[in-house]
Amino acid sequence: MRQTLNKIRTLLGPAGWVETSAHGPYLKEWRGLYGGVAAAVVRPGSTEEVATVLRLCNQAGIGVVPQGGNTGLCGGAAPDESGRQIILSLERLHRVREIDTDNNTLTVEAGCTLAAVQQAAADAGRLFPLSLAAAAQTQIGGALATNAGGINVLHYGNTRALALGLEVVLADGRIWHGLRGLRKDNAGYDLRDLFIGSEGSLGIITAGVFQLFPQPGQQATAIVGLEALEPAPGLLVRLREATADRVVGCELMSRFSLETALKHTDGCDEPLPRPHPWYLLLELADAAEGVALTDRLQAALAAAEKHGQLAASRVAVDRDDADALWRIRKSIPAGQKGEGASIKHDISVPVSRIPAFVEEACRAVEERLPGVRPCAFGHLGDGNIHFNLSQPRGMDGAAFLARWDEFNQLVHDIVTAYGGSIAAEHGIGQLKRDTLVNYGDPVGLELMRSIKQALDPRGIMNPGKVL
Amino acid sequence: MRQTLNKIRTLLGPAGWVETSAHGPYLKEWRGLYGGVAAAVVRPGSTEEVATVLRLCNQAGIGVVPQGGNTGLCGGAAPDESGRQIILSLERLHRVREIDTDNNTLTVEAGCTLAAVQQAAADAGRLFPLSLAAAAQTQIGGALATNAGGINVLHYGNTRALALGLEVVLADGRIWHGLRGLRKDNAGYDLRDLFIGSEGSLGIITAGVFQLFPQPGQQATAIVGLEALEPAPGLLVRLREATADRVVGCELMSRFSLETALKHTDGCDEPLPRPHPWYLLLELADAAEGVALTDRLQAALAAAEKHGQLAASRVAVDRDDADALWRIRKSIPAGQKGEGASIKHDISVPVSRIPAFVEEACRAVEERLPGVRPCAFGHLGDGNIHFNLSQPRGMDGAAFLARWDEFNQLVHDIVTAYGGSIAAEHGIGQLKRDTLVNYGDPVGLELMRSIKQALDPRGIMNPGKVL
Repeated sequence: MRQTLNKIRTLLGPAGWVETSAHGPYLKEWRGLYGGVAAAVVRPGSTEEVATVLRLCNQAGIGVVPQGGNTGLCGGAAPDESGRQIILSLERLHRVREIDTDNNTLTVEAGCTLAAVQQAAADAGRLFPLSLAAAAQTQIGGALATNAGGINVLHYGNTRALALGLEVVLADGRIWHGLRGLRKDNAGYDLRDLFIGSEGSLGIITAGVFQLFPQPGQQATAIVGLEALEPAPGLLVRLREATADRVVGCELMSRFSLETALKHTDGCDEPLPRPHPWYLLLELADAAEGVALTDRLQAALAAAEKHGQLAASRVAVDRDDADALWRIRKSIPAGQKGEGASIKHDISVPVSRIPAFVEEACRAVEERLPGVRPCAFGHLGDGNIHFNLSQPRGMDGAAFLARWDEFNQLVHDIVTAYGGSIAAEHGIGQLKRDTLVNYGDPVGLELMRSIKQALDPRGIMNPGKVL
Repeated sequence: MRQTLNKIRTLLGPAGWVETSAHGPYLKEWRGLYGGVAAAVVRPGSTEEVATVLRLCNQAGIGVVPQGGNTGLCGGAAPDESGRQIILSLERLHRVREIDTDNNTLTVEAGCTLAAVQQAAADAGRLFPLSLAAAAQTQIGGALATNAGGINVLHYGNTRALALGLEVVLADGRIWHGLRGLRKDNAGYDLRDLFIGSEGSLGIITAGVFQLFPQPGQQATAIVGLEALEPAPGLLVRLREATADRVVGCELMSRFSLETALKHTDGCDEPLPRPHPWYLLLELADAAEGVALTDRLQAALAAAEKHGQLAASRVAVDRDDADALWRIRKSIPAGQKGEGASIKHDISVPVSRIPAFVEEACRAVEERLPGVRPCAFGHLGDGNIHFNLSQPRGMDGAAFLARWDEFNQLVHDIVTAYGGSIAAEHGIGQLKRDTLVNYGDPVGLELMRSIKQALDPRGIMNPGKVL
């Protein structure tokens, strides 16, 4: 192993080798759940260098952990504790390779941050609609590897829906040149989508071609208060119809989740005159200018209120007002920390079944542990709810977290009964490896294993992740 | 083999077995290129029956050719001439299993015709936007297996973009239960997209869950005349901006292709006062009612004409007028037959490169064979041009067709140089198997073979197709 690492070090040069003393940021796992050790941290400067590293590691049987912005939430970019894995960072592959505005495509290397990709599109007068909290640090390669979602999935889809082609280095160092910017290409099997969402366990994505969209001409934001969750899916349907399908996002916040944001964040205020058990945060966009989207939204909300479909609502008067509403939503993850220990779920169910699921899951967890505080928030429009549980007040945090698997099973059993997913947005990584085995379709899992075996027979690609 | 077929015949019962005398329609290949023979034609009545047939055929090493509506254009559903393959028709799996309007999903079995799926969506007040010529006969399973495109891809995407989940029977008869209607589901590898577009060579799709969309509140159609093709991509960009991205389709017709339609179809008239070398057929839709889409389109076209970006245009005054324009476009494929022998191409290039590609390809073919008549038409908005060649007048048709491979190579070489696809929409089937080998990325082809080997080790799934 030492010999191979020395060879890699020589081939990559000083810019491509990270001294052990500087390994810290690469080992710091976002949720603090996993503390691993890297035999080396390398930063290739080109696709060819990535290929060289993989070829050498494959020959020597050295496990390679690909890493982008290291903002993943399932430990997918963390090495294990053996000291026999290396981290391969994509950070130096950060060029924008091509923009074609008439074809509405953008070709970027894996190490570009999501913010940089959004900016490159904006500079060209287009929109790249992938939008997540960690955009400044998340890299586009990681977004591809995890099929990142975010807040715009309702209208634009996941990263998968936005990617037209990829350049991928395989386990043995061969390069698959699949970087075509075509909307129609039925020449054989869909290799692109095999790599997207495979979390680095089938190959390393080094570049991607993405679709671009027209920039919105106008936006409108509104907060809605509901007395119950049950009418929410139907309300969203009606609002989409009444606003001619201009809804690009529909976020859900329970009263408790909103309170965690208000309590633990400066500059977050009550969004409506009175408190409500449930809130929806609606975001609309229209490529047209001139048409008063806010007026249309106002009218749609007024009609819904008249029909008893919502309790209260307010349309943001300007972008500052809209940003203030979004600040509440975006402050919930951090706000939860102020309420003690939290057990997380990243689940999705069909949109139509969200109310029934939330009701049943809340009842089940409260029965199991009286005083537990469900913190339900997320992307109602696409079915992905972060159904997190804050510890009962006064309980010992560690004792609560010790029951993580027990509550995961309780909730995941209900999710499965509702035809949902136990890993809606954040992926599997190492956090949910066993969960996938417990809840995945057995035939599907077997297919995945045979594909993994075919593409990575030596098992060096991100070992211990996904499968 | 006889023993296995007898067992299958007994298990399926009379409804599931097609007598040899009735094999005709199943063997009749759409383009008349392939005449095969089936040892049996079976029509299972359920997913479990499909599984039973595959299990038995896999054990006996009998090749199975899955067949939907038999409207494919690459011979993908035609058996070979060995008499040792069976056709498995999905036609009896034609139930609509579920519609969920709050989740905007529709679950249908593979044997439903595309027209039936469109109707089921419409009956529920929604739109299923996949739109192709053969909708009444095409089955949704075949559309999935070939990742069918059609005229609405610009706005809604291919079949792949519309499908959320699948139920698939594997070569050995195991069933992969992947029928989830979720927009966010990152639980492992994307098996769904491996089967979509695999043309029956990895497994048989028996059902799918699809996305539904709001029905358009209004539509607008226009015909545009251009003096040259070069400004077309930029014109489309401007029209999309000016109409707030309401363009759902943009079809291209060369003067010659339009003439073939006018000449050989009743009820097709010149769409503009004067002839033009190139035409665009634009289709717009908006979920909103009330906003005058035709007015907006009219204004956008007038502005483009003022700036010299088009020579002439006309907005359809009503749906009859619009239908008349679409009739021209839809009559081109049949119209070509009236001009003698035709060599076909189903290619795509980046939209921005369509004019340069067409110019270079026309020049190359005319140089190779003076008098050859390129018939270029197709989906400019998504880059997919059917760049077909009609024989020189007076030439012997068979002599022209004898040069099919020569002209394919000439054109495909240019397509590849432009970063395009040699199988944009219709897939590979058997027609383009060698083309795929010649033009496909070698590493990609090797990956496809290893995946095929992993999923179908006995090689019974649609042998001789794709790879």
